[in-house]
Amino acid sequence: MQQLFVIKIGGNVIDDEKNLSAFLKNFAAVDGKKILIHGGGKIATKLGDKLGIESKYINGRRITDAETIDLVTMVYGGLVNKKIVAQLQALQCNAIGLTGADANIISATKRPVTKEGIDFGFVGDVNTKELGISNLELMVANGLTPVIAPLTHDGKGQILNTNADTIASSIAVALSSLYDVRLIYCFEKKGVLENVADDNSAIPLITKDIYQQLKTGNKLFDGILPKIDNAFAAIDSGVKEVLIGHADDLLQNVTETTTGTLIK
Amino acid sequence: MQQLFVIKIGGNVIDDEKNLSAFLKNFAAVDGKKILIHGGGKIATKLGDKLGIESKYINGRRITDAETIDLVTMVYGGLVNKKIVAQLQALQCNAIGLTGADANIISATKRPVTKEGIDFGFVGDVNTKELGISNLELMVANGLTPVIAPLTHDGKGQILNTNADTIASSIAVALSSLYDVRLIYCFEKKGVLENVADDNSAIPLITKDIYQQLKTGNKLFDGILPKIDNAFAAIDSGVKEVLIGHADDLLQNVTETTTGTLIK
Repeated sequence: MQQLFVIKIGGNVIDDEKNLSAFLKNFAAVDGKKILIHGGGKIATKLGDKLGIESKYINGRRITDAETIDLVTMVYGGLVNKKIVAQLQALQCNAIGLTGADANIISATKRPVTKEGIDFGFVGDVNTKELGISNLELMVANGLTPVIAPLTHDGKGQILNTNADTIASSIAVALSSLYDVRLIYCFEKKGVLENVADDNSAIPLITKDIYQQLKTGNKLFDGILPKIDNAFAAIDSGVKEVLIGHADDLLQNVTETTTGTLIK
Repeated sequence: MQQLFVIKIGGNVIDDEKNLSAFLKNFAAVDGKKILIHGGGKIATKLGDKLGIESKYINGRRITDAETIDLVTMVYGGLVNKKIVAQLQALQCNAIGLTGADANIISATKRPVTKEGIDFGFVGDVNTKELGISNLELMVANGLTPVIAPLTHDGKGQILNTNADTIASSIAVALSSLYDVRLIYCFEKKGVLENVADDNSAIPLITKDIYQQLKTGNKLFDGILPKIDNAFAAIDSGVKEVLIGHADDLLQNVTETTTGTLIK
């Protein structure tokens, strides 16, 4: 099968124009079929502050009320997405910016109010069995590079705010029947660190056995566990391998493990 | 050749949620291949006011400075475009929201400073010979309905603000070698009016001969002349016919002239 890179970037890349330009140059140079998923970054919060839209959090999770969903639709789906697309076009990468509503590629269900009574508002959980993969595949097969904002829709006319990591893994899994998918998460660290205080202690390879040993030895910091669990979930669902690390390193030679952590 | 509808809506439809919903219901029901182009409406101006971004005009034309291009990229490319797409999806119309940067469908050239020294800023004039029609055609042929925001790009990484009427006619002309294109301009009047004071005086048909007679008799108000000139220019370049009128009427039976003005 042909290789496909599904690459996710977050705030540490998006929020800094220089970082973003450098990343996009590397991304455009990646040879082969690829999809970029971007998070939201801090621009929405900054703009919300100017507009008097309060950023509300419960237990560290953002609440997306009616004003906020309009705000993130503008910023994620408009400003951030189209700036990335225009820059990639200048780098001869034929990008096409999408949200989950476009071509119905990602439908989602509005998260119900929790047992504890927490209403996350217009947050969507991906309907993983109902992705519009044929339309995404149509674009990829015809040389287009989808650039996907962290927005989905409920099929009833409502845009929803959805976690970019989840969008990336859902798309990677759904396309794994058609491609050898390498799912790449770019974040602020050089990989899964053996010693949190030492940024050069990235573990080069994590298999299920190694993961078990690391967990038993309490070697890993808690924050990274969900990322690794998600990576193994993606692999169990067909993704060939997952790479976690810093954008600067990962795309230098995206077909080999460089300084990031390879999970397989 | 198969028929294709290229339909443009402006502020009178976009700025009112009820009007927009009613229009989209009619639009989704139009049987056959179709493309929607939307203008910006007043949301950008309202949001700009809240953000302290002054709307500047010279001779009635908006100046698009750096703050303003970000603002319209958010509002036109994000908020307005994605709300339309999500609503069309709910109506079982498989819409895909695009700007000119996406899939490189519309490249443009930043308008040079005029002889009089007027700098319109980030305004783009469509490079009509360089449209990415093959990618647009790929979507249309595969059952997708493009929804296009009035934004283009310069191929060097910059988004530009472009007149939606011009985008509509450029796309209509470019696709006229592949389809019988009916270009439809929805505006606030029921058509080209013989008597400006009487909204029910729409002229059902304007040919070049009739247009000449109307102009000679000073029957038409000046504001409508550029619209008719553009319509004939599109027809001279291959578009089959142009229909001008009110959204409420035009889409009821889009394959026949109803109460609008047909130009051919």
